[in-house]
Amino acid sequence: MILTVTLNTALDITYGVRSLRPHATHRVTEVTERPGGKGLNVARVLAALGHEVAVTGFVGGATGRTLQDQLLGTPGVADALVPVSGATRRTIAVADASTGDTTQLNEPGPTITPAEWAAFQEAYADLLRSASAVALCGSLPPGVPVGAYATLVRAARAASVPVLLDTSGEPLRRGVAARPDLVKPNADELAELTGSHEPLQAMKDARRRGAHAVVASLGADGLCALTADGEWRAPAPGRLRGNPTGAGDSAVAGLLSGHVDHLPWPQRLARAVALSAATVVAPVAGEFDRGTYEDLVARVTVAEQVGAA
Amino acid sequence: MILTVTLNTALDITYGVRSLRPHATHRVTEVTERPGGKGLNVARVLAALGHEVAVTGFVGGATGRTLQDQLLGTPGVADALVPVSGATRRTIAVADASTGDTTQLNEPGPTITPAEWAAFQEAYADLLRSASAVALCGSLPPGVPVGAYATLVRAARAASVPVLLDTSGEPLRRGVAARPDLVKPNADELAELTGSHEPLQAMKDARRRGAHAVVASLGADGLCALTADGEWRAPAPGRLRGNPTGAGDSAVAGLLSGHVDHLPWPQRLARAVALSAATVVAPVAGEFDRGTYEDLVARVTVAEQVGAA
Repeated sequence: MILTVTLNTALDITYGVRSLRPHATHRVTEVTERPGGKGLNVARVLAALGHEVAVTGFVGGATGRTLQDQLLGTPGVADALVPVSGATRRTIAVADASTGDTTQLNEPGPTITPAEWAAFQEAYADLLRSASAVALCGSLPPGVPVGAYATLVRAARAASVPVLLDTSGEPLRRGVAARPDLVKPNADELAELTGSHEPLQAMKDARRRGAHAVVASLGADGLCALTADGEWRAPAPGRLRGNPTGAGDSAVAGLLSGHVDHLPWPQRLARAVALSAATVVAPVAGEFDRGTYEDLVARVTVAEQVGAA
Repeated sequence: MILTVTLNTALDITYGVRSLRPHATHRVTEVTERPGGKGLNVARVLAALGHEVAVTGFVGGATGRTLQDQLLGTPGVADALVPVSGATRRTIAVADASTGDTTQLNEPGPTITPAEWAAFQEAYADLLRSASAVALCGSLPPGVPVGAYATLVRAARAASVPVLLDTSGEPLRRGVAARPDLVKPNADELAELTGSHEPLQAMKDARRRGAHAVVASLGADGLCALTADGEWRAPAPGRLRGNPTGAGDSAVAGLLSGHVDHLPWPQRLARAVALSAATVVAPVAGEFDRGTYEDLVARVTVAEQVGAA
């Protein structure tokens, strides 16, 4: 199976309101809820593509029980979350029908104890034994050491399991130094890691810092990959109208899916770009439109940049 | 015991944020949760005054389980809620530390089926047998007939249980016609019921429509009571700084408490005004400050208006 790690899981709640006005009382017209945190989003997309997936990370409290109940209803995703004494956080996205804007309220999440972090590392080591690849995704909850992803990257490499890291800031900097197989920063994360706003220079620097391969997600410019085998660019398929929430997670799912299916890099990137675009156009945030995906995956153009790597 | 009815129960969640800005992402700095809906607030205050209380209404889903777990931790309040297939609603109060303002987001609540409404009426009839008084509080969830409170008032009167009604709009209009012992409208609700913005005229009209007694809560002007025995005014004790959330529910608790303790009207009103003021000044919304209450209840002045009734 493919393993995804979400240390800072969340129950993602979306509220539809007519128009959000500070200091007013609002009747919520629509409520949707789903398990969230980047690794859970990646897992859902992988399962929809037909992969067997397990999710791990921390879960606790009443919100954690709701999240686990909802995971039970997600076919193909096995729950390997580790219980903690604190409560899983909620995030609330207030979608304003009058402007199309979303206002986000994120609870802080539980503080993880040293014993809980140790228990997680044991569970993770067990899960790696049957994993064909692992994705480490998102922010760290309070209490987890800032070098947590570096530790988890090293454990994956020791177990010979290919490892993808998708995080930001200091956890990314330390994680990269532990030599993950792939990192997938966006333009801001890449600039923060390397100090360079020129993507190709920054990707070369990220490889020097330890990443075996780098796939940068550049928004409307699509994906850019720098690997030991070469450099490729996969532009986004035209202007897309929709909600970009989860598009980056879908790209991670596409890369992992292509990896375990032993696809060459251009086809991995095509899968990632098509899934990302199909997520933007889907009516529900974070889901992908299968018709759009199947249409695009055959049509996306991936260009090799000669002599760049 | 005293019975309180909350057909539209809620889990009341408060989020502290530094400053609420539409379209931005906010880190929630503080999260508090408690069982909500007017009748549950009334019950909590009654229990704190030493009364035995039972709460009924509808409860369901994961939020309903959380609400019931939290009720278990409220001493003196017995859970007699009736399970439904829909999910109990959440309300979110976003408290903006920069302005002191609160922005409210209220979920719609579950739709009640005819079978669930019938099951509730049976449970209510059973509970009335051991009730010394009953309070019917708040709005109606979708699916419950608009004449619901009229039905519940008539059942209480048939069981010889004194009944207080605290609601608004058409449910209040129909409920008043069923001749409750007491209604507690605020100035807006009273004006909507009667068409009159002059409180004394409006209270006389509410009595003509069927209410045996009327206690109007007039905000900073305190309480005004019109009963078969006379008219009284109990002004609020000076200007109060704080959060008025729950002050009306505390007044209902004071009136019920005074009723079952067989206090004369002036002392009932003193209890209600003092509890209401002690709720405004308490740091946590909806709770009352016991020291303030005990200080004020002996000092509140209640004036009889001669010749008015």
